[in-house]
Amino acid sequence: MHIDGKAFRTIWFENNIVKIIDQTKLPHQFTIKDLKSVKDSINAIKTMEVRGAPLIGATAAYGLVLAIIEKNDQSFLKKASEDLIQSRPTAINLKWAVDRMMKKLSGVNSNEILKIAIDEAKAICEEDVGFCKNIGLNGLKIIEKISKKKKDTVNILTHCNAGWLATIDWGTATSPIYHAHQKGIKVHIWVDETRPRNQGANLTSYELNEEGIPNTIIADNTGGILMQRGEVDMCIVGTDRTLSTGDVANKIGTYLKALAAHDNKVPFYVALPSSTIDWNLKNFKDIPIEERNSEELSHVEGLDKNNKVTKVLIYPKKSKAMNLAFDITPAKYVTGLITEKGICEASTEGLKNLFK
Amino acid sequence: MHIDGKAFRTIWFENNIVKIIDQTKLPHQFTIKDLKSVKDSINAIKTMEVRGAPLIGATAAYGLVLAIIEKNDQSFLKKASEDLIQSRPTAINLKWAVDRMMKKLSGVNSNEILKIAIDEAKAICEEDVGFCKNIGLNGLKIIEKISKKKKDTVNILTHCNAGWLATIDWGTATSPIYHAHQKGIKVHIWVDETRPRNQGANLTSYELNEEGIPNTIIADNTGGILMQRGEVDMCIVGTDRTLSTGDVANKIGTYLKALAAHDNKVPFYVALPSSTIDWNLKNFKDIPIEERNSEELSHVEGLDKNNKVTKVLIYPKKSKAMNLAFDITPAKYVTGLITEKGICEASTEGLKNLFK
Repeated sequence: MHIDGKAFRTIWFENNIVKIIDQTKLPHQFTIKDLKSVKDSINAIKTMEVRGAPLIGATAAYGLVLAIIEKNDQSFLKKASEDLIQSRPTAINLKWAVDRMMKKLSGVNSNEILKIAIDEAKAICEEDVGFCKNIGLNGLKIIEKISKKKKDTVNILTHCNAGWLATIDWGTATSPIYHAHQKGIKVHIWVDETRPRNQGANLTSYELNEEGIPNTIIADNTGGILMQRGEVDMCIVGTDRTLSTGDVANKIGTYLKALAAHDNKVPFYVALPSSTIDWNLKNFKDIPIEERNSEELSHVEGLDKNNKVTKVLIYPKKSKAMNLAFDITPAKYVTGLITEKGICEASTEGLKNLFK
Repeated sequence: MHIDGKAFRTIWFENNIVKIIDQTKLPHQFTIKDLKSVKDSINAIKTMEVRGAPLIGATAAYGLVLAIIEKNDQSFLKKASEDLIQSRPTAINLKWAVDRMMKKLSGVNSNEILKIAIDEAKAICEEDVGFCKNIGLNGLKIIEKISKKKKDTVNILTHCNAGWLATIDWGTATSPIYHAHQKGIKVHIWVDETRPRNQGANLTSYELNEEGIPNTIIADNTGGILMQRGEVDMCIVGTDRTLSTGDVANKIGTYLKALAAHDNKVPFYVALPSSTIDWNLKNFKDIPIEERNSEELSHVEGLDKNNKVTKVLIYPKKSKAMNLAFDITPAKYVTGLITEKGICEASTEGLKNLFK
């Protein structure tokens, strides 16, 4: 998609260096950062310079490429793969991408391994772009239907950033929106601010602005009354891990919006590439929920009156805070899963039928 | 209650001046502000130097005292009463307090009017303190019951600030907590940050700290998963207006927590003095929902690294935002109303029985 009118992807490989958009600097600064080692890749994932399940997967894949460039050695590569998987606990694509790379590289001659690794990392990225495009085309049908019935702007609420900045291109939750916009369907997006890191405001609103899509940022607290008032036609969110039961782990607060949607009969969709499906876990209580540094809550960064990026403490000095990054939306509150293969019910049955 | 070990109320009258704690400066600065005119009072309510339904009512009552001091004239007083009622639309106590004052002052001799006005404003304050104390004693019974059953710390979630800073003393939602603490019952409070103005973090956590009550600030998004995990034993919130049907208007986001509490069978209580009951409106859709300046969302104030209070823009420059201040929690999601007269069901029947 575009930033300042220029087409970008979130990650690319150039002269043996991995290039990323440093997302911790958005929206106030647009910075392209070089990753030159597996350590750089792990750091980028941990500090959320890259984030979003599909982009984390792609960054891990390229992390293994960088590991091979650093030291073409099987035990170094194995250690790198383990460290990458540990870098964030909740997103399942991370493990999926690393496992896929390691399987491809297993038993490969050390003369060929770099080329094969680069090709596979590129393939993971291209596949994700294709998946996201198809998610968009599938989700577009839902928006089209509402638009035809309503004969007015379709108001869509989204939480956090499941935009192209969370993937390689198109996004998951935003892909149906971008496709609808390109088809001339009038949409307006309610963007949940998404505390504590404000990725809704900082990333989703930012990328929608750059594509010219009308959007309004709201506090995470606001979605409920908007639904009570009939000002939300549908919700679309992304996911970091979807169980085969249809239960969805996504950014903290997703569950509360799903409850409000259910209470007000607003359709609530989750958009995902199949790489975020965890076919093994059966009980959502077994999903590890990441607890991050409480400074993400107590401190906020923004532009001061001199346009300088400044970090401020917003809590009382004596207070402590707790920062859980994800919650679980039980399948019964999900209207449907929008995948690259089509839309299905959020259930074992629904997923099985689509991904036999 | 206490700040830095010293006992305070939120508002008091001294040498023909009304003194308030400027709550827009908390938690980083503790400032006592003088109100010398009805205009000062209206400004204090509008800019939320004072906030919380009971405290807004008391400030309006004293605003009429200041009006009389300024100009002992019936038409000036009438205009002042109308302007005060208009200063914020959702809290019902505002109108209640002004109506009560104006009724008391109607037909009163201009020689006596000031003394009568002062006495009535003081009476409103003392009555609120008594109400809040009784709310505390009534709510205490619920906490005691949970504590006896659980034999461990009682975890209570609250939203926004319905603390003593929202009233004259004790608070509404916090009063049962303060009473439990004083009785030696172990409590721990989950404090919703409460965007956009962060009154949970800035005021509730602040006042709980000053009373030595363990508390943890969480993002507004977090309450859902804490309830899913069984880490919340009960919720208590305040209200800006409660309909005779039991429907509750309170700070934006309350509804989402009530839904989560309902979904996880966590008791959800609303604490209120009877002055916040609207006996006239029957349909919650008729409650005016205040829309405030979107700058409350897009800008945040905090301490920079030099300990200086600094305001920063946290949203993309091109983005727009929308700032609704309240939402409605339907009665069916409220376990009970804790009032000065006792605890009742959130229903016409329940309220009627208690306030015949």
